[in-house]
Amino acid sequence: MERITLAHGSGGKVMHELLNTCIVSRMGINGMLTDSAILDINEGERIAYTTDSFVVSPLFFPGGNIGDLAVNGTVNDLSMMGALPKYLSVSYIIEEGLEMELLETITDSVAAAANHAVVKIVTGDTKVVEKGKGDGIFINTSGIGVLKDGLDIHPSRIKPGDRIIVNSSIGRHGVAVMSERNGLSFEPQVLSDTSALNNLVEYMLSVTDGIHAMRDPTRGGLATTLKEISTDIGLGISVDEKQIPVEAGVYGACELLGLDPLYVANEGVLVAFVENNVADFLIEHIRKHPMGKGAFIIGEVINESPGVVFMKTGIGGTRILDMLSGEQLPRIC
Amino acid sequence: MERITLAHGSGGKVMHELLNTCIVSRMGINGMLTDSAILDINEGERIAYTTDSFVVSPLFFPGGNIGDLAVNGTVNDLSMMGALPKYLSVSYIIEEGLEMELLETITDSVAAAANHAVVKIVTGDTKVVEKGKGDGIFINTSGIGVLKDGLDIHPSRIKPGDRIIVNSSIGRHGVAVMSERNGLSFEPQVLSDTSALNNLVEYMLSVTDGIHAMRDPTRGGLATTLKEISTDIGLGISVDEKQIPVEAGVYGACELLGLDPLYVANEGVLVAFVENNVADFLIEHIRKHPMGKGAFIIGEVINESPGVVFMKTGIGGTRILDMLSGEQLPRIC
Repeated sequence: MERITLAHGSGGKVMHELLNTCIVSRMGINGMLTDSAILDINEGERIAYTTDSFVVSPLFFPGGNIGDLAVNGTVNDLSMMGALPKYLSVSYIIEEGLEMELLETITDSVAAAANHAVVKIVTGDTKVVEKGKGDGIFINTSGIGVLKDGLDIHPSRIKPGDRIIVNSSIGRHGVAVMSERNGLSFEPQVLSDTSALNNLVEYMLSVTDGIHAMRDPTRGGLATTLKEISTDIGLGISVDEKQIPVEAGVYGACELLGLDPLYVANEGVLVAFVENNVADFLIEHIRKHPMGKGAFIIGEVINESPGVVFMKTGIGGTRILDMLSGEQLPRIC
Repeated sequence: MERITLAHGSGGKVMHELLNTCIVSRMGINGMLTDSAILDINEGERIAYTTDSFVVSPLFFPGGNIGDLAVNGTVNDLSMMGALPKYLSVSYIIEEGLEMELLETITDSVAAAANHAVVKIVTGDTKVVEKGKGDGIFINTSGIGVLKDGLDIHPSRIKPGDRIIVNSSIGRHGVAVMSERNGLSFEPQVLSDTSALNNLVEYMLSVTDGIHAMRDPTRGGLATTLKEISTDIGLGISVDEKQIPVEAGVYGACELLGLDPLYVANEGVLVAFVENNVADFLIEHIRKHPMGKGAFIIGEVINESPGVVFMKTGIGGTRILDMLSGEQLPRIC
């Protein structure tokens, strides 16, 4: 009898299989899976709509906790479609015995993150399960954003020649959670990058209309996201390892923990696919934004090798990046 | 150190205190808590938006399972505001080791319930936690509905003299779950009433504009819902026990299990507050609808005794109905 394994929640291959064979089609969800659903509401009004459950363990980690993570994650999923996040729902599944003080601290973080991202929490729910049937607290957030008329940010718009931009260094969230989980500390300390990307996205969209698509590389990390996109659009992707920003602390920690930063989760990173002739102009602007100081052009979309992601390695070779397989980092978000 | 107890998820007094003191205000949610948030989207376009996490145990019970329950619950929360449910999100938190066949069966129920209610599942999420850190599967659904121009279904519209209608017999969901949990069977068998109320609501709204407010009495049951409403609106409520429909099987089971049907959860029942002079006309119509065959006028709203719910008992006395206190039925939805 087949059973669910932790790998089914990994963001990698096994999860994709589960979604494809068991969940998405059964629910009648058609078309490409994107971060938010785009919904027509009467006469051409469009909103974006998304949901995420957060089960991160431990609940607190350097740079954040499950509360701000849950808000930022959903804000970012809306932002990746170019939507202006407006409304959030927050639903708690609490394990009996959770310290009330923790619940209050987490709830304050939820509220602070919502304030910071300028989104309004408008509905919620609270359930409690017996001790041993949950793990402290799980938080679901869903969100609604509005889309400007005529705006079309979608993977299907990506074309050969598009340049690929990331706004900041990768792997920080996953390393922060893993170090906390394992009781390790690194010098320099690695903080989670959990943060809302909507302000940066709004700014990017205001300076150019050459942005074709965006994605936030959470579970499965940058490599899995690139592989997903290249498969979905039927084009190849080529990136340059030297251009992919990774902090020294993340490098060191990954070496020690046996992780590859390319597969480590991010919670404040976006990958943008932009028109070739605006990339240099855009990156200059992004770097002026507080959330984009560490931005780089990491590669481009190519016509050949549909579904394949090539990485020019630091030592001059070429490596093919596949999806994360199995479960490298359970319960990272 | 204060800790979360199962009563915090009960739908009763202790949960209300938790929401009021610890959660809702911290999230900046203002005003009366209703089943869905009503949101203005650009230029007067209004949508309803709601969320619920489902942790029912056991996952399968006579008349339904966690999958259709999760869909119907959110559809009903939207319907209670008079909204036409349109879009749903579905998010799973799965415990490692769940049998895949169960997941498939549950997912098929999610899809079937959505089809039956004519709502579209448009976004989702799947997480997995280690064995012993969850309990089979928890499901969060959120939903968006659209509101017709000018429609205003809200507890604040309730006024003295309004008649109170229920569409069908109460207590079936809670009894079905409890009997399954305790390995009991009753004659006649009690099936959960889990079902979508949107079609009935649409029909009710089409025959009269005298409906002021609706609520579905889930956790905490009919008594808790009446007490909530009377407190929120600052008016008294008077109901007649003889008019409150309770099936024989529910009566028998409640006696055996030591439960009061007035406090047992429903998942396909609505309570409507309607203009006095349309009540008789409306009830005739409701009884013609498949979801309203067991409808009754159970009482009325009164000017005196704000926040107090009186029940004329079957033997001619008067009983005051308070909220459910403590945790009568943990994990009923």
